[in-house]
Amino acid sequence: MDTRRRIERALKTCLDHAVTAPCPPRLGQAMRHAVFPGGARFRPELCLAVADACGAAHPALAEGAAVAIELMHCASLVYDDLPCFDDAAIRRGHASVHVAHGEELAILAGNALIVLAFDALARAGVSQPPLLPGLLRVIARGVGSPSGICAGQAWESDTATDLGVYHRAKTGALFESAIIAGAIAGGGDPLQWTGLGYRLGEAYQVADDLRDVYGRPELLGKPVGQDAINNRLSAVHELGMTGALQRLQDLCEESLERVPACSGREDLRDLIRHWSARLMPQTRTHAATAAAAR
Amino acid sequence: MDTRRRIERALKTCLDHAVTAPCPPRLGQAMRHAVFPGGARFRPELCLAVADACGAAHPALAEGAAVAIELMHCASLVYDDLPCFDDAAIRRGHASVHVAHGEELAILAGNALIVLAFDALARAGVSQPPLLPGLLRVIARGVGSPSGICAGQAWESDTATDLGVYHRAKTGALFESAIIAGAIAGGGDPLQWTGLGYRLGEAYQVADDLRDVYGRPELLGKPVGQDAINNRLSAVHELGMTGALQRLQDLCEESLERVPACSGREDLRDLIRHWSARLMPQTRTHAATAAAAR
Repeated sequence: MDTRRRIERALKTCLDHAVTAPCPPRLGQAMRHAVFPGGARFRPELCLAVADACGAAHPALAEGAAVAIELMHCASLVYDDLPCFDDAAIRRGHASVHVAHGEELAILAGNALIVLAFDALARAGVSQPPLLPGLLRVIARGVGSPSGICAGQAWESDTATDLGVYHRAKTGALFESAIIAGAIAGGGDPLQWTGLGYRLGEAYQVADDLRDVYGRPELLGKPVGQDAINNRLSAVHELGMTGALQRLQDLCEESLERVPACSGREDLRDLIRHWSARLMPQTRTHAATAAAAR
Repeated sequence: MDTRRRIERALKTCLDHAVTAPCPPRLGQAMRHAVFPGGARFRPELCLAVADACGAAHPALAEGAAVAIELMHCASLVYDDLPCFDDAAIRRGHASVHVAHGEELAILAGNALIVLAFDALARAGVSQPPLLPGLLRVIARGVGSPSGICAGQAWESDTATDLGVYHRAKTGALFESAIIAGAIAGGGDPLQWTGLGYRLGEAYQVADDLRDVYGRPELLGKPVGQDAINNRLSAVHELGMTGALQRLQDLCEESLERVPACSGREDLRDLIRHWSARLMPQTRTHAATAAAAR
């Protein structure tokens, strides 16, 4: 089974467990809306790819970690879109969760997805209890305080921050969790894998900042220009378009170099090359136009 | 050290871990505001009391579970008070979290407390990994979908519910988690302890419904009359004041009978008697006046 199908199947099984009687029907609808149809599923694919590269020692545990990480990401998008944050009506080309189901159910669905993420990990961890505390803590670190997604989002409501701290928390931390969790579940040494996720996450965030300036909403499935509207720190704002493009390229190259020795090193590097190509602006002309427009 | 001091110390240590650099300062303030000063700390005390009654096999693990359960409860109160739910300005006699810190930071603090709860459990579980999956799942069940706090709260935005399903999810489920988690961490057989928490939780909820009708806001530290304002299912609405008082008394008696054989059975029954006395209306006259007023 290919990785994408494996992820979708695992997410579906997980949601089916949670959205069953006596779940209030509207809560269940909001939870499913937040998870399906998905976006790129970058983070769970990364988690499984690293586990495979390390030797795939515990495939079910890797799947549980991948599901947990994607559910955390989906929950974070529900909150991002709320009226008190980005107030975004569209996500992945569809109504955002609070627009479709109301603010109350969006908030509760986000909460329930966070809890479900840990539950999925606990269920997968039954077969390998000694690995569970480490996996849980790695994923909690990517999401909570002091340096996970919640902290990253909170920097948008605080002062005296810098772009690096903000990007690492808002995006890098969960990529880092995906990689370290993959290494643990794959039987690798997690210490060898530190830092790669922060680079990939920053690359992803810089690409997102670039798209927010020059992207086309009908292709992105969400509105553009949000960083400026929300007066948010952005790589384009800090480095200029040319500087941001250079930073993206550097981060992709550093990521490739940072993959440690392991049985599946070359496959993983190929995957990172493939992603890097997708993150880079699609045509040189487009990037040049965008750069000139600044 | 008495139980209450043990709980406060464990909560403080846990928050200190999470609210440290690079935590955004305002997020840290909102998280502490949600947890300190606390309310009755019923749930963590129950968890520790059951663990002790079972023989206190793993005290650190019981403490981790108690902390996790209280953090979940604190997070749920942050959400309860939000403008889109109860829109309550006061909690425990102080400004509610969103009033003091803004809606964005209240939502993020709630998220971060849920994550921190699981992290606290994972940290405590390092010494007893085989018990961790069960503990995690028990606590997740009390909070998430299909039948934990999130589901209970979601019933307020849904139709065709009944009071029992709603109360079990909104309040009973986390009491049940506190007891089952205490039994696991104390070395008891969790199966012997099922159902007690649902009864205690329902007693607590019926008492809360009664206070919402006849209570005095200056003593409760929160406004009254919310169930009617929010058109919410309530034991007083469903059973009348006399019926609700009788139900509360029945539930307290059933709870006492349900404590299984264990080394600390009588101590735990004494604690439940003490709580039951606190849950019952303070004077007969007061209750009679309240009943006559309906």
